[in-house]
Amino acid sequence: MTTVYDVTTWSVPGNPSATPYNDIGLIINSIIADIKSQQTSQSSKPGAVVYIPPGDYSLKTRVNVDISYLTIRGSGHGFTSLSIRYNAGNTSSWHEINPGGSRVRVENTDGNSEAFRVYRTGDPRLSAVVFENFCLDGVSFGSNQNSYVNGKTGILFDSANDSCRVEGMGMVYLERGLVVRDADALSVSGNFLAENGTCVKLIGSGQASKVTDNLIGAGYVGFSIFAEGHYGLLVSGNNVFPRGKSMVHFKNVTRSSISANRLHGYYPGMVNFEGVCTENLIGANHFFRETEKFGPLMQYNNGLDELFGLVHLEGGNNTVTGNHFSFDVPSASVTPTGATPTIILVASGNNNYIAANNTVSATAVKTVVLDSATTGTKVLDSGSQAQFEPYQSSYSFRATP
Amino acid sequence: MTTVYDVTTWSVPGNPSATPYNDIGLIINSIIADIKSQQTSQSSKPGAVVYIPPGDYSLKTRVNVDISYLTIRGSGHGFTSLSIRYNAGNTSSWHEINPGGSRVRVENTDGNSEAFRVYRTGDPRLSAVVFENFCLDGVSFGSNQNSYVNGKTGILFDSANDSCRVEGMGMVYLERGLVVRDADALSVSGNFLAENGTCVKLIGSGQASKVTDNLIGAGYVGFSIFAEGHYGLLVSGNNVFPRGKSMVHFKNVTRSSISANRLHGYYPGMVNFEGVCTENLIGANHFFRETEKFGPLMQYNNGLDELFGLVHLEGGNNTVTGNHFSFDVPSASVTPTGATPTIILVASGNNNYIAANNTVSATAVKTVVLDSATTGTKVLDSGSQAQFEPYQSSYSFRATP
Amino acid sequence: MTTVYDVTTWSVPGNPSATPYNDIGLIINSIIADIKSQQTSQSSKPGAVVYIPPGDYSLKTRVNVDISYLTIRGSGHGFTSLSIRYNAGNTSSWHEINPGGSRVRVENTDGNSEAFRVYRTGDPRLSAVVFENFCLDGVSFGSNQNSYVNGKTGILFDSANDSCRVEGMGMVYLERGLVVRDADALSVSGNFLAENGTCVKLIGSGQASKVTDNLIGAGYVGFSIFAEGHYGLLVSGNNVFPRGKSMVHFKNVTRSSISANRLHGYYPGMVNFEGVCTENLIGANHFFRETEKFGPLMQYNNGLDELFGLVHLEGGNNTVTGNHFSFDVPSASVTPTGATPTIILVASGNNNYIAANNTVSATAVKTVVLDSATTGTKVLDSGSQAQFEPYQSSYSFRATP
Repeated sequence: MTTVYDVTTWSVPGNPSATPYNDIGLIINSIIADIKSQQTSQSSKPGAVVYIPPGDYSLKTRVNVDISYLTIRGSGHGFTSLSIRYNAGNTSSWHEINPGGSRVRVENTDGNSEAFRVYRTGDPRLSAVVFENFCLDGVSFGSNQNSYVNGKTGILFDSANDSCRVEGMGMVYLERGLVVRDADALSVSGNFLAENGTCVKLIGSGQASKVTDNLIGAGYVGFSIFAEGHYGLLVSGNNVFPRGKSMVHFKNVTRSSISANRLHGYYPGMVNFEGVCTENLIGANHFFRETEKFGPLMQYNNGLDELFGLVHLEGGNNTVTGNHFSFDVPSASVTPTGATPTIILVASGNNNYIAANNTVSATAVKTVVLDSATTGTKVLDSGSQAQFEPYQSSYSFRATP
Repeated sequence: MTTVYDVTTWSVPGNPSATPYNDIGLIINSIIADIKSQQTSQSSKPGAVVYIPPGDYSLKTRVNVDISYLTIRGSGHGFTSLSIRYNAGNTSSWHEINPGGSRVRVENTDGNSEAFRVYRTGDPRLSAVVFENFCLDGVSFGSNQNSYVNGKTGILFDSANDSCRVEGMGMVYLERGLVVRDADALSVSGNFLAENGTCVKLIGSGQASKVTDNLIGAGYVGFSIFAEGHYGLLVSGNNVFPRGKSMVHFKNVTRSSISANRLHGYYPGMVNFEGVCTENLIGANHFFRETEKFGPLMQYNNGLDELFGLVHLEGGNNTVTGNHFSFDVPSASVTPTGATPTIILVASGNNNYIAANNTVSATAVKTVVLDSATTGTKVLDSGSQAQFEPYQSSYSFRATP
Repeated sequence: MTTVYDVTTWSVPGNPSATPYNDIGLIINSIIADIKSQQTSQSSKPGAVVYIPPGDYSLKTRVNVDISYLTIRGSGHGFTSLSIRYNAGNTSSWHEINPGGSRVRVENTDGNSEAFRVYRTGDPRLSAVVFENFCLDGVSFGSNQNSYVNGKTGILFDSANDSCRVEGMGMVYLERGLVVRDADALSVSGNFLAENGTCVKLIGSGQASKVTDNLIGAGYVGFSIFAEGHYGLLVSGNNVFPRGKSMVHFKNVTRSSISANRLHGYYPGMVNFEGVCTENLIGANHFFRETEKFGPLMQYNNGLDELFGLVHLEGGNNTVTGNHFSFDVPSASVTPTGATPTIILVASGNNNYIAANNTVSATAVKTVVLDSATTGTKVLDSGSQAQFEPYQSSYSFRATP
């Protein structure tokens, strides 16, 4: 019994014409069926590794992963910028025009939007499913290559899961790269996810997961890193670059941490806490906010204005310490016109703690603004008196000397 | 001469009945013997890679690694929660009940407690031994599956070593996962070590090592991450979850760093500095302390009371900055009864520096307590006057405004 | 068509005597030629993986990588300390004396100094070239094994590149390990680079790159981590040990981040900002400065004196927060004789922000010195009044209480 499969040497029983070049989805589903037929003992189902050598593969049929311990692994995330290519005009003299490595073109013809769906009912939750070091390429955003919209999803974990890994992957030109529902102890590390509408979206609920050491850059329509209903999430050591509606978006997330990242964005709301986000740490991050400079995308933004806050906090008891903010937005680009931009907006919640942050800006900014619904915010050494704007009287403030 | 071995295709000379399914220890020891017989030139001993495909293997004989440059590699850490399973009652309808991936069941019948021992006398120290991406499964804790005690150790590095790696491994239900003596420039990264009595234990001495980017959760009887006699250790980017007597325990450790981690625990002493721990940094970490909620384990704890400190510092000149502490322990659960819990206890030592830390608690706490043996502690912006309790007069204090 | 190559099984057309043991450069260049001959369609050039099994290989001919999506991968970084060996005297009783793993001895006889050069003209830039998990061994520094000089370079990226990776590599006894020109979204992670003159050198320009989770230690003649003309670089989670002229050297670098590292050095200028370095963050790092203790290397240093600053800042608007500095240099070792050593020197630039840093030293130091060319520096809670030395009157200062 083998547990090491190669998509290029597998024959689908009863379908000799199936190849991974025509439809790698058929192939991998057939391999999974084989694994299930081989591993029938409840006490011994070690799973397998499915290897995707470097090559150009088409995926027309969604892969349905419903076994634990399956590793799908390639040799190369194969990223190249499709955004540059599609905006470059004549590329006939180019060496190559497409991503490479172990490249799976997401071209579903089966009515599904996902290349891979990880889903199982019953007990236990799926465990230790791994996606590693291959490329999921959405190929095109259609008539408007700058739209970030094509309905395609790279990987959807659609039922509760434990100790899964998405590592070393490349994803490009997907409307949604990775979507994970109800994650426990998930690792999203070492990936290259760029030019997707949304890159990482953790939905439902989750705990004790990490998004670490990635290079991530989403489109203006979606999220770089989004999490909802999580607690104990660690977002650390990532380099998140434009565009992305936000760099890190938390919705009803508690007791989580955003630390030691480099975050670069073109719009307000680079870190956006929505709903009831409490007891989170934003520490030791570098923020750089500027405006879009790439012509074809200058018409787009995320719809937020400069009063929303580069960091927008809803919920209480969060800690914001030791961050650097570089804000480089010309006054003429500010909306509402004439407004003084906000770096940290405490939009709601009690007892947030903001200390030892430094803001660099050539134009006047409010480093911390407290909306009227907030109470008990503590603001220390994070700007001058003139840079502080409390719309309510319950707070403590110590100006940076 | 091959340097790439597969445990499933190796035949033990003179022992044709040996298989990796019966005793992978015999197989790997035989492979190591082969490597040594092939590589006899002092100037050329490149080592080899031993591959463990996904599968269920039993280890009855300890593997003795006494050569440098050996990589033992699988395809999948294969973690699943045995704690949930063993506490679940009837699991007859479950899809699977055991860990998977490249799963090695630690079932020594040779009188040894370790699955792998890395040990050599003479010069030089063993270098660049690598354990990567397989599963060490202790199988059972015996009559009490919640005891975290079975005498089993996954990997023991037992002599001084340099530039070794333990990466991408899974370990579960071992009394001790990884134990490393006298490490230099060790890398413990990207692992999933959970439901072991102790997960990572660095003993003897050590320098310039790192424990980074791991998911780790030990039992109530042992350590998540323990280090003694080290200096220059970096513990960063880990998500450490319960239980664990502590999340990070330093004993006589100096000039080391605990930064950008997410730490979650059920007992006092989440970070525990024992003995003479000096000049260490605890920076930009998220701490979440609550009480055990899982019924079968609610009877257990680590024996410490709430006056011990969520962070307990022995030794001087340590720095604690930019951390968030969430403390969610109901008054009724506090021991000693009626006590005001301590977040940071400076138990001994001079000139510790504690600044810009935020504590969130629904109940009254002392954010910093100075024991009488301490002098010169500096406490800045880390709580109110009422939250500060100095049992001695040599200190500086500035309350959070 | 294969896309998986093994250097030990490849035959060079027309050159049957070529082997990877004699010249792995010839082999890999021949493989690359084969890939190019197989992949001629502009729309489908997925590249390939070249596998280097554990073994001892000589490289006499430079490998020229001029295709995207090439992964060159081994099984083992194979580091061992050549510095210890060459300074050990009689090693005839040693088990082994050389590095191992997938070990490539850099022994160019082709007039080039690099083992690997990645270079291509035309569009697009080379993308997703990967070096992974093998050893580049410079073998010797010649007549003075402590010179760190032999003219050898491990890998040179010599034209603009995107989304490339150097991960899990080992490099030793090279004058220059990794040199990358004009990097975009480069990942240098999980490597073991030690005993090279220079370990990582990012030249020209660059953006959105990361140097994370490495073990790095350069020679006294060169750089541990050097970057020029970059912005948006993330240096995080590294353990950088001696020697190295500096641990992190930025030249005209902006809006970058050095966070959550452990940095250990023997000379002043551990972090050295040269030229116009602006809006960078140095946060949550542990610094340990001592003097050389290893006899054979005690005669060497980087030529800087203790007034240069353990951290030397040129340029403005940088943020230095939440760092720990351990300074352990006996007064008798200080140059200029009798000088009071400087921890942070603000040598030029406006509006640098220095807050919540702690310095531990048995001897008197100036924790922050402001040169006369600086203005508007803010220094908070980073030392006493006596430890602060402003050579100019434009600043704010708040002493650590």
